[in-house]
Amino acid sequence: MKHDKLVIGGHEFHSRFILGSGKYNVELIKAAVEQAGAEIITLALRRANSSGEGNILDHIPQGVTLLPNTSGARNAEEAVRIARLARELGCGDFVKIEVIHDSKYLLPDNYETIKATEVLAKEGFVVLPYMYPDLNAARDLANAGASAIMPLAAPIGSNKGLCTRDFIQILVDELDLPIIVDAGIGRPSQACEAMEMGVDAIMANTAIATAGDIPAMAEAFRKAIEAGRAAYLAGLGRIVEKGGEASSPLTGFLQE
Amino acid sequence: MKHDKLVIGGHEFHSRFILGSGKYNVELIKAAVEQAGAEIITLALRRANSSGEGNILDHIPQGVTLLPNTSGARNAEEAVRIARLARELGCGDFVKIEVIHDSKYLLPDNYETIKATEVLAKEGFVVLPYMYPDLNAARDLANAGASAIMPLAAPIGSNKGLCTRDFIQILVDELDLPIIVDAGIGRPSQACEAMEMGVDAIMANTAIATAGDIPAMAEAFRKAIEAGRAAYLAGLGRIVEKGGEASSPLTGFLQE
Amino acid sequence: MKHDKLVIGGHEFHSRFILGSGKYNVELIKAAVEQAGAEIITLALRRANSSGEGNILDHIPQGVTLLPNTSGARNAEEAVRIARLARELGCGDFVKIEVIHDSKYLLPDNYETIKATEVLAKEGFVVLPYMYPDLNAARDLANAGASAIMPLAAPIGSNKGLCTRDFIQILVDELDLPIIVDAGIGRPSQACEAMEMGVDAIMANTAIATAGDIPAMAEAFRKAIEAGRAAYLAGLGRIVEKGGEASSPLTGFLQE
Amino acid sequence: MKHDKLVIGGHEFHSRFILGSGKYNVELIKAAVEQAGAEIITLALRRANSSGEGNILDHIPQGVTLLPNTSGARNAEEAVRIARLARELGCGDFVKIEVIHDSKYLLPDNYETIKATEVLAKEGFVVLPYMYPDLNAARDLANAGASAIMPLAAPIGSNKGLCTRDFIQILVDELDLPIIVDAGIGRPSQACEAMEMGVDAIMANTAIATAGDIPAMAEAFRKAIEAGRAAYLAGLGRIVEKGGEASSPLTGFLQE
Repeated sequence: MKHDKLVIGGHEFHSRFILGSGKYNVELIKAAVEQAGAEIITLALRRANSSGEGNILDHIPQGVTLLPNTSGARNAEEAVRIARLARELGCGDFVKIEVIHDSKYLLPDNYETIKATEVLAKEGFVVLPYMYPDLNAARDLANAGASAIMPLAAPIGSNKGLCTRDFIQILVDELDLPIIVDAGIGRPSQACEAMEMGVDAIMANTAIATAGDIPAMAEAFRKAIEAGRAAYLAGLGRIVEKGGEASSPLTGFLQE
Repeated sequence: MKHDKLVIGGHEFHSRFILGSGKYNVELIKAAVEQAGAEIITLALRRANSSGEGNILDHIPQGVTLLPNTSGARNAEEAVRIARLARELGCGDFVKIEVIHDSKYLLPDNYETIKATEVLAKEGFVVLPYMYPDLNAARDLANAGASAIMPLAAPIGSNKGLCTRDFIQILVDELDLPIIVDAGIGRPSQACEAMEMGVDAIMANTAIATAGDIPAMAEAFRKAIEAGRAAYLAGLGRIVEKGGEASSPLTGFLQE
Repeated sequence: MKHDKLVIGGHEFHSRFILGSGKYNVELIKAAVEQAGAEIITLALRRANSSGEGNILDHIPQGVTLLPNTSGARNAEEAVRIARLARELGCGDFVKIEVIHDSKYLLPDNYETIKATEVLAKEGFVVLPYMYPDLNAARDLANAGASAIMPLAAPIGSNKGLCTRDFIQILVDELDLPIIVDAGIGRPSQACEAMEMGVDAIMANTAIATAGDIPAMAEAFRKAIEAGRAAYLAGLGRIVEKGGEASSPLTGFLQE
Repeated sequence: MKHDKLVIGGHEFHSRFILGSGKYNVELIKAAVEQAGAEIITLALRRANSSGEGNILDHIPQGVTLLPNTSGARNAEEAVRIARLARELGCGDFVKIEVIHDSKYLLPDNYETIKATEVLAKEGFVVLPYMYPDLNAARDLANAGASAIMPLAAPIGSNKGLCTRDFIQILVDELDLPIIVDAGIGRPSQACEAMEMGVDAIMANTAIATAGDIPAMAEAFRKAIEAGRAAYLAGLGRIVEKGGEASSPLTGFLQE
């Protein structure tokens, strides 16, 4: 485990937990990042930019990689513009592409996302597209230059868990890119299960922001993600479909 | 979390992971206990007693509470005899009652288990009965003097996970005793989910013994159990059944 | 299918759908029985006995076998008394034993149910005990003289579906008695699934009584139960865990 | 129910079960169609065209609408060519678009499928695209002129069931087109569940072709689909999340 690294766009990370910042009071961000052990935190450009509540950037610990997202973009062109703005504002080269024009389910538009990925990858961005877990789209994103893909587990903010389980497993089995499950993960056990399946990292936001105790929930997610990764690397045991199998010596004791 | 204690029969524990020993090579037990952070370990009497492979007791770290089980008992009377023998052999006052006469599914006989619990509780044992998760039987066990109950998730050794989910939740909601989920838990994520539901502790054996890397899997379970407990205490966020909910500010960015 | 019979206590039935009557307006019972194609209908003794709303027996079509239940009994003795009363009132020899003393989840007490079964079977009743799906209790019920067993899918009236799936499958695999899934089935698809597993019949009440259109839902259940039975007899196809398998000739078409 | 019609491209159907033909021995097709009560049957063009095993068209009963598919097409252009050929061969105006270039999971390429749909709809075809259940793609297909959409439940031929449940529900809630669940449905209960969710029709092939008794399984599917439709129209009852609810009068009987 000590040498187990997540590599995205040539950058090495030891944490496999990417923290969202979209729903937090700025005062809570530092505690959440610390308890989560997060090395990457997403950031909506509006928050990086706003003056109202104090610049959120002041609350992010040193050494944490920013992952600005293109939240608010409804097509590839808007996503590209937001990404460029983020770089100009000093947010670095990483960008999470979000293209959404469905305000009820907030589902990503894979097609526009592929177009934006292609443009931004050519401009030297480390591109992490948020996507609907469709194998064909995932391959197109890989070909367009994505450094990782971020398939959804369930609609953003729903806390419904791994509704796309079977199709995320296909992505894990078929793609060579890091797979980061993003959106819909509502409980540490769900993050753990995704990691057991071989996913490379988890991004969570609402599950933590809507918990009763935010730093405690951030720590719970950290441990669950580490547990799932360790279990995946250790090799899960087999399942017995029918019947049981004694785990203690059962017979003959009293006959002796 | 620091002051979060599990109290069984007046004894305090900080770990909520009870490790089985039935399937291990004795050399691996010490590593597994340490990685699991376990303070309680189960033990089949035959193993405590046997001379063939070296006394298993020599391999259990100091300070760990032994939980001898009555594995091999087919009725209350046999369980009582095995429990008394274990105490005579110096295994202490804790006993896990297992009464099984079905060799295919290894399901516990609740009725005989209640009878044995009643006898042994009166003799001063700290009785932890392994049981089929039936609310009526659980109440009878509580009345018979059980110090905790150990409902099964799935058949022993199956690694099938929380097949009794809805009925374990009822036990959590209705009983005042500690609930320790025992048997069938196959993955850290399943242990985590049970803890999120409010279960007090997890017992695992086969899931770890059949893993590729036993100490690593023991550690994965430890973290997952801690994560589930922390999430339960922190208060899980709400689930949105229909639609999504933006976790980043979505609208208006580009209009400004 | 034409010769596929359900035999309970020496009586032959062609329908595998047992209808509850507990929640219906009496006017609806006749329509529900007809649309359900039911040959057996349960009846709470109070309703057979009451004068307030018109005797429910007047609304049950000719030729339908009554299955009085012991609803209201809190122990074996009360169940036996109610069963005898039902026979005296002319309800026949069939009796469904229900012993419940938990008013929140309404879960059956297997132990008291076994005792009542033993007494009533000896008195010549055709005994169908409602039970919590525990293999050991099921064997005891068979030994006590039950003509069929009625394991629950979920708490009565919950419409939650097959929460006990894995344990009902064990009963199907291990017992020689007819298995009638009773309580908790909320949708025709759930009844169909239980039948596909090899269950012999389904009892439903709340799912139909709480539907928008009661006779239509009764018919939907009838068809779903017939479909599940037919699929079980026809032999279900295999599942492919990984990947897909072409169902049309895929390759080479355009090359020719 | 009598007046409940499925309308696709202006054509009215009473059956909601579309039968695949790809895996059958030609001798079995007639029996399967009759037992299924199918009014639409899919057909791979190669089979319509082949001379080897006897023309499959000779085995399809009068009055059944043919739905030729573009099986074998790897992009929009090939799909368009196959569709035109099918019309020239006398297969009529209906066409099911299948564009697949992933030979392991056989997942449809939504993007190429949208392009082919647009071309063929303009040429007067009644276009039914097979698709990955992505809301954005479904809207694009509607805009491109599709007469219905055919989202997959699971990979073709897998019999794994409703793996895409949550996302098919979104399509049902958001689109005005008929939704026909196609691919992956392995059991009548799964077809029934999809219909209960509000889906308009089911297409099945492998589940029936791999059953032990093909005509019997075709009939089982027919009934299950009718049951699910009836339940949807009748209005499903509510689910009680916690606790049960008496379906018979419980208290006081013995006190009187």
